[in-house]
Amino acid sequence: MRRLVIGRTRDLLNRSHQNYRHSQHSLFLSSSRFLSSAPVIDSPSSSSSPPMSPPVTLNSINPKVVKCEYAVRGEIVTLAQKLQEEIQAKPGSQPFEEILYCNIGNPQSLGQQPITFFREVLALCDHPAILDKSETQGLFSADAIERAWQILDQIPGRATGAYSHSQGIKGLRDTIAAGIEARDGFPSNPDDIFLTDGASPAVHMMMQLLIRSEKDGILCPIPQYPLYSASIALHGGTLVPYYLDEATGWGLEISELKKQLGTARSKGIAVRALVVINPGNPTGQVLAEENQREIVEFCKDEGLVLLADEVYQENVYVPEKKFHSFKKVSRSMGYGEKDIHLVSFQSVSKGYYGECGKRGGYMEVTGFGADVREQMYKVASVNLCSNISGQILASLVMSPPKVGDESYESYCAERDGILLSLSRRAKMLEDAFNNLEGVTCNKAEGAMYLFPRIHLPEKAIRAAEEVKTAPDAFYCRRLLNATGIVVVPGSGFGQVPGTWHFRCTILPQEDKIPAVIDRLTDFHKSFMDEYRD
Amino acid sequence: MRRLVIGRTRDLLNRSHQNYRHSQHSLFLSSSRFLSSAPVIDSPSSSSSPPMSPPVTLNSINPKVVKCEYAVRGEIVTLAQKLQEEIQAKPGSQPFEEILYCNIGNPQSLGQQPITFFREVLALCDHPAILDKSETQGLFSADAIERAWQILDQIPGRATGAYSHSQGIKGLRDTIAAGIEARDGFPSNPDDIFLTDGASPAVHMMMQLLIRSEKDGILCPIPQYPLYSASIALHGGTLVPYYLDEATGWGLEISELKKQLGTARSKGIAVRALVVINPGNPTGQVLAEENQREIVEFCKDEGLVLLADEVYQENVYVPEKKFHSFKKVSRSMGYGEKDIHLVSFQSVSKGYYGECGKRGGYMEVTGFGADVREQMYKVASVNLCSNISGQILASLVMSPPKVGDESYESYCAERDGILLSLSRRAKMLEDAFNNLEGVTCNKAEGAMYLFPRIHLPEKAIRAAEEVKTAPDAFYCRRLLNATGIVVVPGSGFGQVPGTWHFRCTILPQEDKIPAVIDRLTDFHKSFMDEYRD
Repeated sequence: MRRLVIGRTRDLLNRSHQNYRHSQHSLFLSSSRFLSSAPVIDSPSSSSSPPMSPPVTLNSINPKVVKCEYAVRGEIVTLAQKLQEEIQAKPGSQPFEEILYCNIGNPQSLGQQPITFFREVLALCDHPAILDKSETQGLFSADAIERAWQILDQIPGRATGAYSHSQGIKGLRDTIAAGIEARDGFPSNPDDIFLTDGASPAVHMMMQLLIRSEKDGILCPIPQYPLYSASIALHGGTLVPYYLDEATGWGLEISELKKQLGTARSKGIAVRALVVINPGNPTGQVLAEENQREIVEFCKDEGLVLLADEVYQENVYVPEKKFHSFKKVSRSMGYGEKDIHLVSFQSVSKGYYGECGKRGGYMEVTGFGADVREQMYKVASVNLCSNISGQILASLVMSPPKVGDESYESYCAERDGILLSLSRRAKMLEDAFNNLEGVTCNKAEGAMYLFPRIHLPEKAIRAAEEVKTAPDAFYCRRLLNATGIVVVPGSGFGQVPGTWHFRCTILPQEDKIPAVIDRLTDFHKSFMDEYRD
Repeated sequence: MRRLVIGRTRDLLNRSHQNYRHSQHSLFLSSSRFLSSAPVIDSPSSSSSPPMSPPVTLNSINPKVVKCEYAVRGEIVTLAQKLQEEIQAKPGSQPFEEILYCNIGNPQSLGQQPITFFREVLALCDHPAILDKSETQGLFSADAIERAWQILDQIPGRATGAYSHSQGIKGLRDTIAAGIEARDGFPSNPDDIFLTDGASPAVHMMMQLLIRSEKDGILCPIPQYPLYSASIALHGGTLVPYYLDEATGWGLEISELKKQLGTARSKGIAVRALVVINPGNPTGQVLAEENQREIVEFCKDEGLVLLADEVYQENVYVPEKKFHSFKKVSRSMGYGEKDIHLVSFQSVSKGYYGECGKRGGYMEVTGFGADVREQMYKVASVNLCSNISGQILASLVMSPPKVGDESYESYCAERDGILLSLSRRAKMLEDAFNNLEGVTCNKAEGAMYLFPRIHLPEKAIRAAEEVKTAPDAFYCRRLLNATGIVVVPGSGFGQVPGTWHFRCTILPQEDKIPAVIDRLTDFHKSFMDEYRD
């Protein structure tokens, strides 16, 4: 047996040696590139002096950074923060008492309470020394204590302060894979899971992997969540837009995908991937399963990586729609690893949990060859690992308390309370927007946002032009200044040219919604009175 | 007064409008780039068909990703993980009982216990509902409870599950700035602090900001921590090496910096920044203050951003050396904001706390113009914020318990116990390496590593060549296979060509060190017996 093991080890070694040569080669390349590929000035003592270091200014930093935009935390939020400081410094100085941040899906900042069970487990894993103290029984539920022990046993040395495997703790990935299987009814491999600090770093990782130059394109919905445009800009690629159809509830038409793909290809763009956000952000639509099948077929036929943003998978508010993961849809069509490149993003920031500050999330990566997967692992390893609390929380949201657990009933009550309230808030705000003169608003079937369209009077558009601002931004600033309500202009997400929208979260606490609607309505009336043609 | 406020708001608005136009412009650019700058094929129906999407293979992904290397979690670790699986599956199948991971500075994975006070505060912030329960008094120290309340009061709405300000929670940045002031005796501005998920994302952020193309260079020490080479490769820049002088205890000579800068400039490279790691990784040297002054002067004169990796600031083991931050040194020379661009990186992963898995850290950024700072904020905002537990922990390490606090004595005992033990372990391992035939090892004055040089016999070098591997990697693999001890070949960090080293952490628990030394020594003797010329 010893010989066998030695033989296996030798195989490993030989394989590794080959890799090693490759690695050595790359390392030398990286220094020799410095020595060789940069243009050599033959006579350094010639009259032209060598280039000095440019001062660090807007003109000398990476232009991709300058180009990138992220409206969700853009300048309207900066203005809101300044107004808030003014209110604090001089109460009564504004026509409102507080700033209401409806610009970002950040539920707990607006008063949503965390799920108790999740926080109990996190606290116990942070300070395992209390796990076997008698007082702990009085403070924590029995299943939280049990779960904390289970999780600690999955962590080598029970060391919650150690770097983990760069894809995340193996036992937690097992739990997540089991959760995906239970959700989809199809197998999930823990080795396909990459745990990340929220979903954003996972999106960046895929863009970094796929984008080689501006000749590489990524198909993105318009309107889109601006993480995508920002990440594509930072990685130097080209955003290939496809428009969602507002008239059919932000419908995603395959004919539109084909048209935009064809146009891009005719211009020499190698389109690498299709981004689909389901449920939609900022648009709130939930895709029908039949539509998802068409999308899978399209990606398979065209060789596109399907980047499925599924972070709102728990946020569906209408009985006629149900969330289906693209993994489930593609597997139910009989498509496996060899047929389609598929990446699904999930986050602990959304759903009913809304744990944005914990920065937990994962991507499930299927359909890539082993060599490409190794590259993903390498990039993950450069950043060592994602934060362990976020990892634990990602496992918890994919494996919440079950029937019979001590926390089960309170957990269900908390979860359902949040989700039912969100669906009521979505409906109340949708109705309110549709009651405003010149405003139409599609239903939020899911996610956390409404994206109403404002038909602005010509006079308002001219007034905006006079102060050199976009008409929707003009409206949103006026709204903020009059009411303290912060929303994001549609131009931050993209919209059909000549149409104007804004994104408003459905997250203010339910008892505040009537007052929010009153403030919105009053503002809108006076705005229209001022600018009606 | 109302008029005054309105006037101020109008100013803000006007300024924002101008920015807004800029933002609109960029957004349109980003779609119009797709429409215009890509080469247009005049007749899409012509015989040459448009480019299809390339399959996702090693040849079609981003070559910067392929080029990047990170040896600390490279293939020798992959081999170690496979050996570990073999041991678990078949105990006794290897000539050792466990794998000892000395490849990475991950103290808690090797049994170091977390600082109790820090974990108490984290647990209470994770589950604030228990803060006013009577059982909590019995489980947690009074000052941990008080600190948790203080921190919660610094978080808007006490919402530890909300996204924070993209630079980190303001109150925590205040605490960190106060800690820096207490450390340095010079002011620190909380607005200069960017809290990040460990130090690595902060390093990436600066590389992303500074590197425009391969014509931009970053001066890095050789040997270096491979995060730097990896990040420069991922961002497409050029690593400009400067060699530390092993003969003078890894001395950093200004003449070497000047020589390498001159060579790089003569080849057309715009050198943007100088990376200094102090205390050194993998080299363990602690810079003398006089040397630091020269470095500051050099960066100031040459217009280089000084990127100061100061994550080992608490890890100094020799009485004759003391850590001085580059901020303190530059301020003590009379240089302020206008004189030098300076970025200091700090992490909760190192020091006596070793909280790697919490992914907390920050960078303090000084000397940049407001417009460049805005760009940094924008990039931070795309990722929303770093994880709140890591943020809290970063504030704790910069503001630990003080005289009179209930935890003060136990905190000091834990801290000093860890640091004193680390210094003993460093000395024991250093002596052991120096006792090996053909091995010389500089002292670890600080940090967590030794970087011994192995003078390999010609026969060993030839044997390595025969199996197509680098001689130091050959040695490290043999070491792993014989002893289960995982170290990283010097080629992963860079070394003077023709010299061979490896990096070994000083982190095995102290009671294990004698056995580690025995295993190392036995292996080395038999290796030398096999290959001695």
